[in-house]
Amino acid sequence: MLPDTLQWNAAVPSLRLLDQRKIPDGIVFRDCLTYEEVAQAIEDMTVRGAPAIGVAAAYGVVLAARVSPDLAEKAVERLSATRPTAVNLYWALERMTKTAQDNKGSSKIYELLENEAINIHKEDIEINKRLARHGQEVLPRNAAAITHCNAGAIATAGYGTALGVFRAARERGKNVKIYAGETRPRLQGGLLTAFELFTDGFDVTVICDSMAAFLMSREKIDAVIVGADRIAMNGDTANKIGTYSLAIAAMEHGVPFYIAAPLSTIDTNCPNGSGIPIEERHGDEIRLIHGRRVIPAGINVWNPAFDVTPAKFIRGIITEAGIIMEPYVENIAKLCCEYKREVRIR
Amino acid sequence: MLPDTLQWNAAVPSLRLLDQRKIPDGIVFRDCLTYEEVAQAIEDMTVRGAPAIGVAAAYGVVLAARVSPDLAEKAVERLSATRPTAVNLYWALERMTKTAQDNKGSSKIYELLENEAINIHKEDIEINKRLARHGQEVLPRNAAAITHCNAGAIATAGYGTALGVFRAARERGKNVKIYAGETRPRLQGGLLTAFELFTDGFDVTVICDSMAAFLMSREKIDAVIVGADRIAMNGDTANKIGTYSLAIAAMEHGVPFYIAAPLSTIDTNCPNGSGIPIEERHGDEIRLIHGRRVIPAGINVWNPAFDVTPAKFIRGIITEAGIIMEPYVENIAKLCCEYKREVRIR
Repeated sequence: MLPDTLQWNAAVPSLRLLDQRKIPDGIVFRDCLTYEEVAQAIEDMTVRGAPAIGVAAAYGVVLAARVSPDLAEKAVERLSATRPTAVNLYWALERMTKTAQDNKGSSKIYELLENEAINIHKEDIEINKRLARHGQEVLPRNAAAITHCNAGAIATAGYGTALGVFRAARERGKNVKIYAGETRPRLQGGLLTAFELFTDGFDVTVICDSMAAFLMSREKIDAVIVGADRIAMNGDTANKIGTYSLAIAAMEHGVPFYIAAPLSTIDTNCPNGSGIPIEERHGDEIRLIHGRRVIPAGINVWNPAFDVTPAKFIRGIITEAGIIMEPYVENIAKLCCEYKREVRIR
Repeated sequence: MLPDTLQWNAAVPSLRLLDQRKIPDGIVFRDCLTYEEVAQAIEDMTVRGAPAIGVAAAYGVVLAARVSPDLAEKAVERLSATRPTAVNLYWALERMTKTAQDNKGSSKIYELLENEAINIHKEDIEINKRLARHGQEVLPRNAAAITHCNAGAIATAGYGTALGVFRAARERGKNVKIYAGETRPRLQGGLLTAFELFTDGFDVTVICDSMAAFLMSREKIDAVIVGADRIAMNGDTANKIGTYSLAIAAMEHGVPFYIAAPLSTIDTNCPNGSGIPIEERHGDEIRLIHGRRVIPAGINVWNPAFDVTPAKFIRGIITEAGIIMEPYVENIAKLCCEYKREVRIR
């Protein structure tokens, strides 16, 4: 059984995070008692995965609100500055801010913020299941698929986005053989996805990221399905570095390439991919592997944590509201209007 | 200063190999006194790089011939079975076999075989320099290029093929900024190419293999230049796994993609890429990084050591006889005829 990525302990209060950096060597948890501890856990990637960091940040605000409403405001600012690319983080913090503003001066502000964070947490699992139900339709009865990084139960509040699609397919009696790109430099595919799918009894094979194109030329692959950190209004999508390379290879081989992500991943302020900030992380993520130096410190490295896949490479964006297809500009705009009415403004 | 990959000691006799698995941590040599030791050094990748293993195998035959002509024959058989993809190995062994057959019964057979191996060794450096002179013409005065794996002085008898092209460009006063793909699973790019170019004073930046496509979308790249392990008569080329992915990305971005290899890399018996055997290596090359297990033993991995890049992705094949361009079928056939006349049948 997979452990929960996030567990809220209302009594203390505290947020227990699964330390994703320790998987698969060990199942280690880290308890955060302050928003600063949550912020650090996001920065050092104890918790990662766009939906998971959104939920974690929401609880971070609750921890600050326990002290004072002013500190909750400060927490929003601090948590916003942890990682620049995943938009779910800002979306969750916006929801928390709105709840705080709508209930300014209320004696129940703490309970209301706690409720909102718990809602964000619960909704995430529900949304994953809903999008996975739509997504599984793209897979045949006997399917072979490639995924990248970890868009699974570990990266979310549970169930997963891309890996959720594989779960939903299996629940409908389909066989799914999954190839997981190891996802250098941090190896989330080799460590987290392989562990998650293997633990869950899936037929999973790890490949180096550079092998995916050759695999597509040698074996029938039915789909590439990955998660997303931010989707622009024209469908351009930022996701873990290596996604773009995979999308180009998929198009060359006629393999449909899908993004699986909740609607909260769509950035309505971002018309296209050029506006998405791409986090560059420390070069030692490449230079050291599991603490061992492989490349001397004097040698330059370039370490973008994400890349942008233009919409033209994307066959569909699997969301809880269905699979968005071309023309993306029209279809995303339409969906976002409905979504805002239904979910954000309640 | 880079140490020599191969040093023949005629007095002992023995072949001293630079242990490429120890770079960049240390400069360690391994002395081979028998053909079996050479065979093992090729298998365990003490010596790697298509041209370098060709030269090493030739010396292996010499070490056997020191014992008896019969053992030299056995050595050819054993050395042929070390690695299946690089054709230079078979080419070098064919030359040794021809020398043995042409001089059967001669009292000078040992000296003749030793001379032939020394010729193969010396020619390799000369050939690299010649192909690099042709190749540097594709680079502008201020160039940015991507390479993969190690097609350098370390992979050859010296100077290098793809990296030789960068050396020749610099000798002509050009500035070359080089991005080296780290080349999972064995990290030859991150370890060997970065070390070789850094030691030689080049501006080198290491990237993960999956970053190359994103790099091409963000920065002007003038060329991708890589080596080759086997080239079919239609131009399809086997090279280190990840090459194909890089070639697809290069075409998508309009970046010219070049192969740099001696004519001995062309397999005249191989009409196209589907006939090239692709070595699959042990899964622990992916599961363990520098001896540390990152993926549990129970999880499947797929580990092809090479891939095949179809000729349509290749702008040109840089050889000692010039840059071969489309139509490859005609141009390769023509060149191979001339080459056989000049070099192989002497």
